[in-house]
Amino acid sequence: MNISIIKIGGNVIDYPEKLNEFLYLFSRFPGNKILIHGGGIMASKFGESLGVMPEMVDGRRITDKDTLDVVTMVYAGLINKQIVAKLQHLKQNALGMTGADGNLIRSIKRPVKTIDYGFVGDIKEINIDLLETMLSGNLLPVVCAITHDKKGQLLNTNADTIASVMATSLATKHNVNLYFCFDKAGVLIDEKNDNSIIPLINEEIYSELKKENVIHSGMIPKLDNAFSALNKGVNHVWIGKAENLLLAAKGKLSGTTIEKHKYDLY
Amino acid sequence: MNISIIKIGGNVIDYPEKLNEFLYLFSRFPGNKILIHGGGIMASKFGESLGVMPEMVDGRRITDKDTLDVVTMVYAGLINKQIVAKLQHLKQNALGMTGADGNLIRSIKRPVKTIDYGFVGDIKEINIDLLETMLSGNLLPVVCAITHDKKGQLLNTNADTIASVMATSLATKHNVNLYFCFDKAGVLIDEKNDNSIIPLINEEIYSELKKENVIHSGMIPKLDNAFSALNKGVNHVWIGKAENLLLAAKGKLSGTTIEKHKYDLY
Repeated sequence: MNISIIKIGGNVIDYPEKLNEFLYLFSRFPGNKILIHGGGIMASKFGESLGVMPEMVDGRRITDKDTLDVVTMVYAGLINKQIVAKLQHLKQNALGMTGADGNLIRSIKRPVKTIDYGFVGDIKEINIDLLETMLSGNLLPVVCAITHDKKGQLLNTNADTIASVMATSLATKHNVNLYFCFDKAGVLIDEKNDNSIIPLINEEIYSELKKENVIHSGMIPKLDNAFSALNKGVNHVWIGKAENLLLAAKGKLSGTTIEKHKYDLY
Repeated sequence: MNISIIKIGGNVIDYPEKLNEFLYLFSRFPGNKILIHGGGIMASKFGESLGVMPEMVDGRRITDKDTLDVVTMVYAGLINKQIVAKLQHLKQNALGMTGADGNLIRSIKRPVKTIDYGFVGDIKEINIDLLETMLSGNLLPVVCAITHDKKGQLLNTNADTIASVMATSLATKHNVNLYFCFDKAGVLIDEKNDNSIIPLINEEIYSELKKENVIHSGMIPKLDNAFSALNKGVNHVWIGKAENLLLAAKGKLSGTTIEKHKYDLY
């Protein structure tokens, strides 16, 4: 099976017009597909209205009990169901899920070392049988950033990580491509200039770009993550703007495509 | 297929201990089953924290845009996913849904006559193919009181109505029983005495009990609803306490069973 996994984040979700535009493009994206979404600033906004203030340690959000309730409401309730309803209107047979639904994603609560992240889940297992059954039955999984431990506890889990781990799990049996919709046009030489996209990165190019300090700081974990997926069998990883997703699907240059080998160049 | 549809309301959902006890009993309930739930006072509580006050006209809640967001968050997010995670722990392969997911329940926004109820949906169609596929695939649908119009709009829909309409739709092809878990032990002769249960009501008994004013006010729409389901092919309807659900499943007297004909007496 050819499967595309597409991840959208707050830069799309937080703006109704952008979300509508994205969902229209997504509805025209060909083949078997899975949509993964996070929550953006909406969760923080609702949390603050409820008196649940974001608690950060070393720049990372701590998920206490109240925060977990808020993200469950916003991700699995409001955002997931609005996306599903809009996709249904676009004649896409979307079905929204957390990792608890059908035991789609089992994780474990992150062990406490120096920092207690609270109710945060590290993924242990993806139920690829369920995804195969859904895709074969023409159902489109829309998955939000909540998982469970199969012991009754919901857990907050990074949506980028869900997308990567789901892609690598499915890649053991299928031909999988991974698309990250991002707030920039791709990996950029000059991060202030959307026209300075690096169209293709492989391992050799990556190590050179790191050496020359073109790729640095926040981009490194993203690309490491992408190469890790490629090393585990994912076909290619694309990073770009949501509005360029269809160009990417057609193989047109539109963002940054990350492939493993030099000889994979177009 | 034999299918049991079980509806729980706020009297179970609002109390974590009661909910846990119910879910344990529900996990032991034999055969194919579907769980339908509303939201109880939790939605009102969160709404008030967010400054969304319940607006009532003639004793009925009006669902404006903000209220719809709140019920979507609480029903489809918090409550539905907590139930699913707990059932997964109980080795039940639960999958939580709104009516938008897989186009399970299509409704239309209630037309404005004297009162504008806002974003409230009247059910038009149940996707029984999807339910059949899920039950055959050993997935347990957990359905909350949100539907959609297939034009991108989510709608708030009464959970009792969802249970009845789903039961009658499935009854066209299957052997369906309907269970309403309630805050009283069943239909009572003396509503203050839980020991005064009327164990069995059929159409003849019902008209007599109404004549004698034993059944009155709020109980009448509930029973009319039950008889309407029976007239459309549902096998039997049970009304009782959540903790007596397993007794009911075993055919033991435990609440009120509503059947169509006199000769259906045990």
